[in-house]
Amino acid sequence: MNNKIIIAIDAMGGENAPSKNIEGVSIYLNMNNKQKDVYFNLYGDEILIKRELDKYNISSDYYKIFPSSTIVSDEETPLTAIKNSKDSSMWNSINSQIISNSNITLSAGNTGVLFVVSRMLLKTIETVSKPALAGLWPNEKNTNVVLDLGANVECDDKNLVDFSEMGAALYKALFPDDNPKVALLNIGSEEIKGTEVLKKAFAKLKDISKHGDFEFNGFIEGNKITDGKSNVIVTDGFTGNIALKTAEGTAKFITDSLKKSLSSTIFAKISVIFSFFALKKFKSKLDPRKFNGAIFLGLKGPVVKSHGSTDAIGFYYSIDLCYRIIKGDLMNKIKNNLSHINNESN
Amino acid sequence: MNNKIIIAIDAMGGENAPSKNIEGVSIYLNMNNKQKDVYFNLYGDEILIKRELDKYNISSDYYKIFPSSTIVSDEETPLTAIKNSKDSSMWNSINSQIISNSNITLSAGNTGVLFVVSRMLLKTIETVSKPALAGLWPNEKNTNVVLDLGANVECDDKNLVDFSEMGAALYKALFPDDNPKVALLNIGSEEIKGTEVLKKAFAKLKDISKHGDFEFNGFIEGNKITDGKSNVIVTDGFTGNIALKTAEGTAKFITDSLKKSLSSTIFAKISVIFSFFALKKFKSKLDPRKFNGAIFLGLKGPVVKSHGSTDAIGFYYSIDLCYRIIKGDLMNKIKNNLSHINNESN
Repeated sequence: MNNKIIIAIDAMGGENAPSKNIEGVSIYLNMNNKQKDVYFNLYGDEILIKRELDKYNISSDYYKIFPSSTIVSDEETPLTAIKNSKDSSMWNSINSQIISNSNITLSAGNTGVLFVVSRMLLKTIETVSKPALAGLWPNEKNTNVVLDLGANVECDDKNLVDFSEMGAALYKALFPDDNPKVALLNIGSEEIKGTEVLKKAFAKLKDISKHGDFEFNGFIEGNKITDGKSNVIVTDGFTGNIALKTAEGTAKFITDSLKKSLSSTIFAKISVIFSFFALKKFKSKLDPRKFNGAIFLGLKGPVVKSHGSTDAIGFYYSIDLCYRIIKGDLMNKIKNNLSHINNESN
Repeated sequence: MNNKIIIAIDAMGGENAPSKNIEGVSIYLNMNNKQKDVYFNLYGDEILIKRELDKYNISSDYYKIFPSSTIVSDEETPLTAIKNSKDSSMWNSINSQIISNSNITLSAGNTGVLFVVSRMLLKTIETVSKPALAGLWPNEKNTNVVLDLGANVECDDKNLVDFSEMGAALYKALFPDDNPKVALLNIGSEEIKGTEVLKKAFAKLKDISKHGDFEFNGFIEGNKITDGKSNVIVTDGFTGNIALKTAEGTAKFITDSLKKSLSSTIFAKISVIFSFFALKKFKSKLDPRKFNGAIFLGLKGPVVKSHGSTDAIGFYYSIDLCYRIIKGDLMNKIKNNLSHINNESN
């Protein structure tokens, strides 16, 4: 187990658990069969998990099962979660960063509960004003980190500065060959636009960016999120959530319209034969499963939330994300970036 | 001129003015040659306008030119606009609702200046807390009215209630055979989600909707904007602007990716021959020019803002929007809807 990256998986979280979760593990091991530096701590119903592991002939060199007696339901609310979720597969997968050797936790279960329990068990980093939820989003060149996606409905300038440093750290951990370029989401690109909070954050970020943790590109509007000139998009949780969901809805609306058009006439149907590989590539590039996995940033241990409704391939991508987060040394990068704020603004 | 709908056009506003503006008038008259109940008051450089009118053989039965000596530049800011834009084509086209017989004003010029000057000359309706900027947005079934799109960065519950009533009035004016269905944009659909302002607006709208001006669908998330179940989407100007621009950016990102894919291989290129009409229909359905025209709601006279960069066809659609606003008796519908709030909440 020396030098192995140890991922704790809530095997019971999400639709079709533990089937898709374990199939995701199997896909991951098959895709990375030369790089055997990964190990899984699996939390949940031992019999169900074992049955799935056997289905894919997964070698016991790669996992240990930790039986957990209960499951967090989708109906559970953050208010009662601490009381009701003790010893659940989710709780134990988080707590394993403290009492076992796990480096990171992955769950496709109830988001609100995952956030509350993670925050309570792992604790917020002392110098972080608020933890945030970061997501991945395709852009013209590669991938954006976007945060906050809904953990904090209202944010002040200090929060937005913390999000910028943490988002830049995440970007650098995931894409070590590229540089983080931070932009604040706003309703105009001029310095005088937007709320007082945004204007204050702008001034602070301009100053702090001289430490070199990231380039600061100032304000950008919603239509520039995907142009690739910036790759760390910072906003409050309300705006970020609306932007993410609006983009998802628009993407679905357009691809549905396209599908309808391409099956509307016999000629259009014939055309699909010729464009099959091109359309497949188009679909693959925008496949939301490739961007599956939101990251809680600002806690003393890293936690990744997979979409509950994703399939085994989507779950595989969130395992890969966990691996890259640890390999890229996210926690030390966050610590290093945050030290620049605190020297600066207090 | 009896019973004619009189549209005041700032002929000098926007890129390629007055060429695209007058060509838009020409397209409108050709498309509606049986329905001759429209008349244009045209504001700007008389010689330039006349030259364009002659190019399209537009009969002088349909217009009068009002020479205006200056033009509002794109660099003009709302702060100095009142001083600098006097007697401009934009100013005069707005003022014509007061000193001439125009029913509505259309400009493709500087948005900020148009808003400030319109507000000063036409005045806000006494019972309206804040005027708003409403836009049109395609959905699965037909079209959404979305507001506010950026006139008010911060909004309280009273503003959101006013926006709901005015948006419902606009929807009914434009689509008289359908019923307005109002929803508040939020980060969850449950009643307890979101900011205090949203929760208060939710309670008020639930109550006010019993007057029958609109159905109230409660909160919706960004991914439901286009599903057609709601058709009047209400939010503050910051969130609305981010949502609109993010949707525009996403649409562009996806259609660009599609174009790239369909020209990537020889087979894909052949496929386009077969799918030509289907793809044309797809493109036409989502053509942003069809949704060109944002409406200032809450002033004592109606003002429509066309995209500055649109072409003659886009400008034609905004002329059509002006016509439908007056034909649909928007101003009386707004007055009627607002009367229900004021009986209620004071």
